Amino acid sequence: MISLALSVSSAQAADLRNTVRAWRSAHERTIVTEFVTLLSLPNVATNIADVDRNALYIEDQLRARGLETRLLRAAPGTPAAVFGARKVPGARRTVIFYAHYDGQPVGQKGWISSPFQPSMRSALPEAKPIDWQGGASPLDPDWRLFARSAGDDKASIQAMLSALDALQAAHVEPTVNIKLLYEGEEEQGSPHFAALVARNLDLLHGDLLIMGDGPMHQSGKQMVNFGNRGIASFTLTVYGATRPLHDGHYGSWAPSPAVMMAHLIAGLRDEDGHILIPHFYDDVAPVSPADQAALAAMPPVEDDLKRALGLGRTVGPARLANGYLEPTLNVRAIHVGDDEGPSAANALATQADASLDFRLAPGETPAHTRELLETYLAQQGWLIVREDPDLKIRLSHPRIVKVIWDEGGSIATKTALDLPASRAVVASIGRTVGYQPITLPIVGASSGMADIVNQLHIPMAGVSIANYDDNQHAQNENLRLGNLWDGIEVYAGLLADLSW
Amino acid sequence: MISLALSVSSAQAADLRNTVRAWRSAHERTIVTEFVTLLSLPNVATNIADVDRNALYIEDQLRARGLETRLLRAAPGTPAAVFGARKVPGARRTVIFYAHYDGQPVGQKGWISSPFQPSMRSALPEAKPIDWQGGASPLDPDWRLFARSAGDDKASIQAMLSALDALQAAHVEPTVNIKLLYEGEEEQGSPHFAALVARNLDLLHGDLLIMGDGPMHQSGKQMVNFGNRGIASFTLTVYGATRPLHDGHYGSWAPSPAVMMAHLIAGLRDEDGHILIPHFYDDVAPVSPADQAALAAMPPVEDDLKRALGLGRTVGPARLANGYLEPTLNVRAIHVGDDEGPSAANALATQADASLDFRLAPGETPAHTRELLETYLAQQGWLIVREDPDLKIRLSHPRIVKVIWDEGGSIATKTALDLPASRAVVASIGRTVGYQPITLPIVGASSGMADIVNQLHIPMAGVSIANYDDNQHAQNENLRLGNLWDGIEVYAGLLADLSW
Repeated sequence: MISLALSVSSAQAADLRNTVRAWRSAHERTIVTEFVTLLSLPNVATNIADVDRNALYIEDQLRARGLETRLLRAAPGTPAAVFGARKVPGARRTVIFYAHYDGQPVGQKGWISSPFQPSMRSALPEAKPIDWQGGASPLDPDWRLFARSAGDDKASIQAMLSALDALQAAHVEPTVNIKLLYEGEEEQGSPHFAALVARNLDLLHGDLLIMGDGPMHQSGKQMVNFGNRGIASFTLTVYGATRPLHDGHYGSWAPSPAVMMAHLIAGLRDEDGHILIPHFYDDVAPVSPADQAALAAMPPVEDDLKRALGLGRTVGPARLANGYLEPTLNVRAIHVGDDEGPSAANALATQADASLDFRLAPGETPAHTRELLETYLAQQGWLIVREDPDLKIRLSHPRIVKVIWDEGGSIATKTALDLPASRAVVASIGRTVGYQPITLPIVGASSGMADIVNQLHIPMAGVSIANYDDNQHAQNENLRLGNLWDGIEVYAGLLADLSW
Repeated sequence: MISLALSVSSAQAADLRNTVRAWRSAHERTIVTEFVTLLSLPNVATNIADVDRNALYIEDQLRARGLETRLLRAAPGTPAAVFGARKVPGARRTVIFYAHYDGQPVGQKGWISSPFQPSMRSALPEAKPIDWQGGASPLDPDWRLFARSAGDDKASIQAMLSALDALQAAHVEPTVNIKLLYEGEEEQGSPHFAALVARNLDLLHGDLLIMGDGPMHQSGKQMVNFGNRGIASFTLTVYGATRPLHDGHYGSWAPSPAVMMAHLIAGLRDEDGHILIPHFYDDVAPVSPADQAALAAMPPVEDDLKRALGLGRTVGPARLANGYLEPTLNVRAIHVGDDEGPSAANALATQADASLDFRLAPGETPAHTRELLETYLAQQGWLIVREDPDLKIRLSHPRIVKVIWDEGGSIATKTALDLPASRAVVASIGRTVGYQPITLPIVGASSGMADIVNQLHIPMAGVSIANYDDNQHAQNENLRLGNLWDGIEVYAGLLADLSW
């Protein structure tokens, strides 16, 4: 490993981890009290006043820990990103840590306690309220703190704040220059964040981006990912007669939108998940030996998953993550006719609608994907339209499909696993936790961050600390305390151990 | 034609028609007044007291015209069928005329006048209220009487009553023994009617059944049909994981119910409407030369229909009615996922549902259809279940489909066009109207009457008199007066001209 000479030894890393752990053990109630304060700030991104209160609070916290701070906005009236920076004398590398402080809407129902009144509760499934503030005994790491954003994504911010505290208390200097970028509208789809980044590219210069978001691997092991697939989603509508027709009188003669849609979809993807559009795999980047090795080393979860999900078979590659470096065509929804039961009208519907997405592998682009699909449809005899056809168009074309591409398609993000920075992240986390972390070449899902990551042109590693069952985006979101403890150690390690 | 010697001459038929027409011209207001009385009786079949009032009124009307009458019921508390019979000295044949006096539910909205307060109105589209009761001038045949059941199906009953009156006034004896069977629960799906017929098979003995129901051909020409296709309808459900899965994380690995359903349906029917299930056409009765000739003589409606319906192409046979002697597979509805728009959850749905029907050609049976479909599905690797599978079944079978057959499947009814009775009906109507009626070998739709027709084992001819645009089953049902006038002549002709 190129950076071996520069990296701290495993023994030193263990010392650091033990130092951080000791500090945490002595300050558990202080850490949780701080986290409760952060979680008590309502943070639904559509309420600018609320998100600004979060931004100012976080900015204060960073300033108190010696960082230079700024609030960045794409334009007045848009949510602020909190930026904090600390230059470390002698450090050669600059690492940008991303997280977001806004949260999903909370809805009205189903919360066992108010989403912005954090509630400590015992381990699942009991989840009984715990009076944790008194006493000096250790807090049970299986207790969970229930609140909106406890897992997604204020946990990453609190872990960083506590990691900075732990290092300061131990007089340990970071090995890298630190830049923190905490977004305020991620759960709204980051409508202004790309512009915000574009306006601040100089400020956001660095050597590595660490994305701290999302839940951990189901095994509970630390995992580092190096990208996300891209996406191009769209809707299809095919047309029959302009009014519903009795299927006894007309079914043998009038085209059936339901059958047309079935054939159209069956022509796009085979039963094993392979996309049938010509040239669809031409752009896909080859899988590197490093990616192949990482995929081969992924812990086997497939048998457990099949049992948990009631699946008698799977499609595509036998290993779940092996499909992530290929594109996937997903059919999210099909809707034809009024009802699917025996009471469904015995009619030919006037149209069939479907909602689909392509998950794009590295190398593919939404633009070329669109071109390939539409070329294929045209070759199959479809006239492609962008709005419902009028009578003249209907009468002059035998097969008409409306194709509407959703806004916000993105290419994949992908950092090579064998870059020095990539290896350094995995090695540092490995030293902290004492085992080889899982290395995922790419996440199967897409990320709203693709546009930002691809603007910065630096390696990216995704490091998650929240428990996988944190109910993110749903009611009763929660963070397991042990995950916060581990997250503090991982972040402290990245700050004070990472080097390449 | 075998029966030529027995049939009245065209000249005699024209005399009869003119006699009936003269009587009608002299009694238009009386006829309409009677019809208004009949239509004023609420007749939604779920209200037994209401339908009984209809039955008693109609029974009185028949008795007043010299018929022997009975009310037939399958069991106490079920709607009565009104039976009336008249033996004619010297008549060799007995003809059973079927109609129904119950009507569709009326709903609450959209009626321009109350459904059980019949309202005379001017020709469409104005439909202005007409004060028709005063004066002696002829009523405009394009006026329409608005009321529930005006077209479907009290028009057939009033036409028969007036035809009997016209013959009596002219001292013309019917040429056939008459049996009338007027049902009271057709619009409810005739739940007790098959049992009612089975209990009265001796009473319902006859040589020909004339079904007087439904609207006329769009051309306004008289049409005689000789059967209905059968039906076997069903729902299909295919299964994915037991909970919705993020399609980015799982789409390349977990089976997609949407794609499974698309392939399943695409495997059942090709894009030109041909059913792909092996042996599906083996049972289909060959098309007789008489049927072929009748189909070839059908007035061309296809170009107009394509324009009216906005169709740029059709499937199957180019001529609409040519598909009726073949089976059709219709997909009534498909439902997968929550929504079809851009907001559709980016998830793999847990299941896909579809509602389908087979319209069966003569020779096919619902039982064999079920067997053919299920054999095909099993050959394709599907495990067929009748209820949602439990976890154990899901885990042990790769492809599971729930197949639920709707109750009430039926075989086709089909009377040969070249039977003497069939020829006699067409010839008689032709003599009355002065042109060759349209002869439809079979109606594309199915009929709830199949079970009854097939019990009686006699030839069946369908004769409709209502205008095709009578809004049957909907608000503002109406009968065009000219259609009632023509219907009286047609029925009088069938009573006093029909012979074979």
